[in-house]
Order: sequence, then structure tokens, then C-alpha cells
Amino acid sequence: MDKELKFAVIGGGSWATAIVKMLTENLNEVGWYMRSAYALEHLKRQQHNPNYLSSVEFKMDQLILTNDINEAVTYADYLIFAIPSAFLHTELQKLTASLEDKVIFSAIKGIVPETGLIVGEHFHDVYKIPFDNIGVITGPCHAEEVALERLSYLTIASNDEAKAKIVAKNLSSEYIKCKVSDDIIGTEYAAVLKNIYSVAAGIAHGLGYGDNFQSVLMSNAIREMKRFIKKIHKMKRNINDSAYLGDLLVTGYSIFSRNRMFGNMIGKGYTVKSAQMEMNMVAEGYYAAKTAYELDATSSTRTPIIDAVHDILYENKNPKKVFKKLTDKLD
Amino acid sequence: MDKELKFAVIGGGSWATAIVKMLTENLNEVGWYMRSAYALEHLKRQQHNPNYLSSVEFKMDQLILTNDINEAVTYADYLIFAIPSAFLHTELQKLTASLEDKVIFSAIKGIVPETGLIVGEHFHDVYKIPFDNIGVITGPCHAEEVALERLSYLTIASNDEAKAKIVAKNLSSEYIKCKVSDDIIGTEYAAVLKNIYSVAAGIAHGLGYGDNFQSVLMSNAIREMKRFIKKIHKMKRNINDSAYLGDLLVTGYSIFSRNRMFGNMIGKGYTVKSAQMEMNMVAEGYYAAKTAYELDATSSTRTPIIDAVHDILYENKNPKKVFKKLTDKLD
Repeated sequence: MDKELKFAVIGGGSWATAIVKMLTENLNEVGWYMRSAYALEHLKRQQHNPNYLSSVEFKMDQLILTNDINEAVTYADYLIFAIPSAFLHTELQKLTASLEDKVIFSAIKGIVPETGLIVGEHFHDVYKIPFDNIGVITGPCHAEEVALERLSYLTIASNDEAKAKIVAKNLSSEYIKCKVSDDIIGTEYAAVLKNIYSVAAGIAHGLGYGDNFQSVLMSNAIREMKRFIKKIHKMKRNINDSAYLGDLLVTGYSIFSRNRMFGNMIGKGYTVKSAQMEMNMVAEGYYAAKTAYELDATSSTRTPIIDAVHDILYENKNPKKVFKKLTDKLD
Repeated sequence: MDKELKFAVIGGGSWATAIVKMLTENLNEVGWYMRSAYALEHLKRQQHNPNYLSSVEFKMDQLILTNDINEAVTYADYLIFAIPSAFLHTELQKLTASLEDKVIFSAIKGIVPETGLIVGEHFHDVYKIPFDNIGVITGPCHAEEVALERLSYLTIASNDEAKAKIVAKNLSSEYIKCKVSDDIIGTEYAAVLKNIYSVAAGIAHGLGYGDNFQSVLMSNAIREMKRFIKKIHKMKRNINDSAYLGDLLVTGYSIFSRNRMFGNMIGKGYTVKSAQMEMNMVAEGYYAAKTAYELDATSSTRTPIIDAVHDILYENKNPKKVFKKLTDKLD
């Protein structure tokens, strides 16, 4: 039998923690980098991440913990990135270790603000990683339910099916089912766009629209997503597969989604700045709306929902008026 | 200008009450039949339906109220049926007035148990109504939100587009947007199937599956619905339009759905009989599961979710075991 491939997870948040948990079901050893020295020390002493999914207990002899990203990169054959896209650029600037020959899977659902690229493209364009060494891990999956070991389905996408299968195998367990896909661009854009639609769902809720409208919004959102992704990267895909529609639904219908919460505050009359300060964080959908809008402008696809969210967040337009107009464009 | 066409609504439930409300926004006069003499008297004296959407006030001079179905049929050019499918056969047996030349729109989402037909087919096969005089009114639409005048979208389907447009015009208002479709069979089957999927969502919830699984279930359900409807009546349709996907979502994600509630009780271990007794009613999805399963068996489409619900409700199979097997068939 081959030597066990080495995996490391980059990130200390809830999704990173969930992925480490999945990997520990299969591997004898998992590398785990997180920035916070405090969290790391706590983890070592208390066997759980103090900040996220703290109910999940880890066995310390299974974890190779570090707060030096270069150690994690040097250690692993497969790197799984699960940090907010807004921090990726800063983290990668710490790198002295080479990414050559590393297989990089992104569990990040967002746009890298500095380059306006989705994560896979960012690694490819900036770090010259060949697409065959790049992959995407996508839901529909709330990390919190992984902690509870509730059945969840993941889609693992890569140009190189063999690598996607390796990652799928090492994430699968009694409560995780994985499907393999070759649509690395489409699944990643879907994961990005769904955050914008989730902001839209939040705005609608904040403005007082009800469940009837929400279902119409989601039904229009998946059609818009299909048009958008088709324009970006045309290939045979079923937009109603779990990685696209399922991922949209799990976020758009979640009252815990940060994007939806952010949108809700905007709908209720908060300014963008005050909503961000109140939440003490920036929702991924905020960046995504800008990038998607700018891509859309060049590609001339009809995307009324993205346009509406963009105009509210970046053009300072009145949410009530923008949504009133939007309702005439939906059906 | 033409003389105002006469509309009558058949039914005293929440959906019938919502439709009467919509019509009164446009028409000087609306016929309304309900079986209960008590509710009718209450309505006359208190200006609202005592049992459903009681917050909605009607103007008595706009309503032609009757508890004789023949009076309503004689009165109207357009009849809108909005009673539970289980009662349709009994109600229609009271008819002495002719349905000839009447335009009949069904707002019923179910299978007529006595014939195993969807409502449009039932009128066509049993009462020889030509399909050009038959139509369907479908959501996504909770009646309760119509009462609150929250923006809702309806789809009005008929073979005869002109008739669909007339109904659409008379239901539209500030808070109701209507879309016209020629897919009378597909929209009606969608409305029927979504009740089965809503039962499935309830069973899953009752068994302890979470939001991640729910989104996978819905993503599989819409693909299953597409296959099923395509087999029944092949035509160009976008299954992600509001009448199909939207209607599925508004029901499948509603904690107030009676079908979901019924399924939830089954998932928690109630027998079918005790769940029905406890709810004091029969969920539409219960009948639909049987008819759809039997149609499916003849048409050999892959429908694992319908099969699972059928086996639990009619073959007395263990919900936990059936769903465990079902999870392997979803992706």
C-alpha cells in the first residue's frame, strides 16, 4: 500500500474545523494551520477549538498543529484552504515554502478582493499552479451540522478526477457523502454567487417581503446563476445538482447565514458601513456582488438580482426602491 | 366595453378566501360558494370568514354568497375551484346546473381520490369539459401572505391563452403578479408532487436530518419532478420557473405546511392513522403519493423520493430504514 498522503488544512474558522474533523475520521494524521496562537494553545490543552465548533473534540496525537503557514505547506501533499477570501492574500504573502507540486483544494467561497478572482483562478494566475493541481470543495454544508454529525453531501471538483477522488475518499464517512465533479469553475462561481443571493434574500426579508416572495426570488436566482455560469464557462452541467441549487438553498434559507443577516440589516435601513461594524465582519457576498457585477457588465448576461444587490451596496441606492423595480423583473 | 365577466369561487377554506380577496380588488361582484351555512351567516354579519384568514374584511355588496353550489355555477362564467381534492367528487355530485360553456380553473393542488386524476383531467374525463375551457391557478403562494397583502406571484395556465390572461388580469393587483403559461398538465402535476416532497421533508426532519440534508433533498426533488413531468407530458418548460421550483420551495421549506407536519409526525414514529387523527385531516400528499407511485410504476421513471414516501405510507415500511436507503440514492 502507498504511503498515506499528507493533508493539511489552512484556517481556524468553523469550516476549517469541520474539514479537519472529517479528515480525522480517515487519516492517522492531519496538519492544521491557524493564525491564532491563543486558539492553538487552547486546542492543545482542551482538545477543542475555543472559537468555532467547540463541541468537537479532537485527539491530539492525530493533529500536526502549527501557526506557521510554511510548516503546514512543507508538511502536506494536499492543502485545503478554508479561510475567508479577504484574508487569503495576506496569508499567502507569508509563504516562503514552495507551492510547487502541492495539490491545492479551496474550501473558500468567495472572491479574492485584491485580484477580483475566484480562489482557483487566483492560485492559477498568481502562483502558477496548474489547474490539474487545483480543486474545490463545496456544499451544501453548514459546518455546525458536521459538528453534530448530521448527514451532509459535498461536491469535490477538479480537472483531475483522480485527485478529486482522493480528496472525496478522505472526507467521506458515515455522515459525509462526497460526489466528484469536473466543473471546477462552475462550482466555485456557484458558491460565490449564492452569497450574493443570500444577501438579496436578507434584504427582501428586512424590507418585509414574505415566504412567497422568497421562493420566487430563489427560483429566479437559480435561473440567473445558470445564465451567469454558462457565460463564464460553458459546459454540460445540471444547475439543479446539490453543488449549485442545494448550496443556494442551504444558504438562502438559513437564518444563520452571515450574508443573509447582513442583507437583512441593509433592508432594515442600516448603512453598509454600520451593518459591517455591527456584525464585526464583512460578509463574503459584499465583495462578491462587486466582482460579479463587473464581470457581468462585460459579459452582458441578464442578472437583475446581482445588479440590484450591487446598486444597493455600492451605488448607495434605496433598497426599497431598488427591490420594487426588481419585483417587476422577476417571474 | 364588454359586460363584466362573472367569476365564482367554490370553497370556504383559506385558499378560496384568498382568491375571493384577489378578485374583489378587480371586480364589482364575486360569487362565492361555501358548504358551511354557519360560516356564510357569520361572513354576512361580521364581514369576514370565521374559520380562515379571518383578518380579511370583505364588502358585502361585492359578494354574491351562496351555500348552494348550483347557484354559484349558474351565476358565473368563470368558476374557480378551491376545495380539498378529497371533497371535489362529493361536491360535484350535488350539481344539477350544467357546466357546459363554463370556464373552469382549478386552484386545487391534489389528486381526486375517486378517479386518481389531477383536477383538470377529472373535469375533462368525467364532465367532458374541453381542455380549452380548463385552467390551473398555481403558486408559490401561502394564502396567509395574501391576507397580509405581501407580494406574491401566481402562474395561470390554460391551453387557451386568452382565458388564462382574463383570469390573470382579474387576480392581479398591487400585491399579486400573475404569469401566464400553457403548461396546464405540468403545472398541475408540479403542484401535486410538491406535496409529496413536502411530506418527505417532514419525514426527514422528524428523523433528525438537518438543513444540509434538506437542501440536498430539495435539489434531488426538483430533478425528480422534472423527470416525472417530462414523462407524463413532454413539452418545453423550465422546471426552475416559479410554478415548479418556487412552488416546491414555498411548501418544502414551510414549517406551516400540513404535508410537512404530517411527514414530521411519521418521521417521529406516529402511524399514518394516528398522524391523520391527530391532525384531524388528511394531507394532500398522502393521496398524491399513491397515485404518483402508481403512475410512476407504469412509466418507469427513476423517482426514489416518491417511492420512499409511498413505501412508508402504504407499505408500512420503517421510515428510518427507508430514508437510510434513500440517502444512498441522492447526490
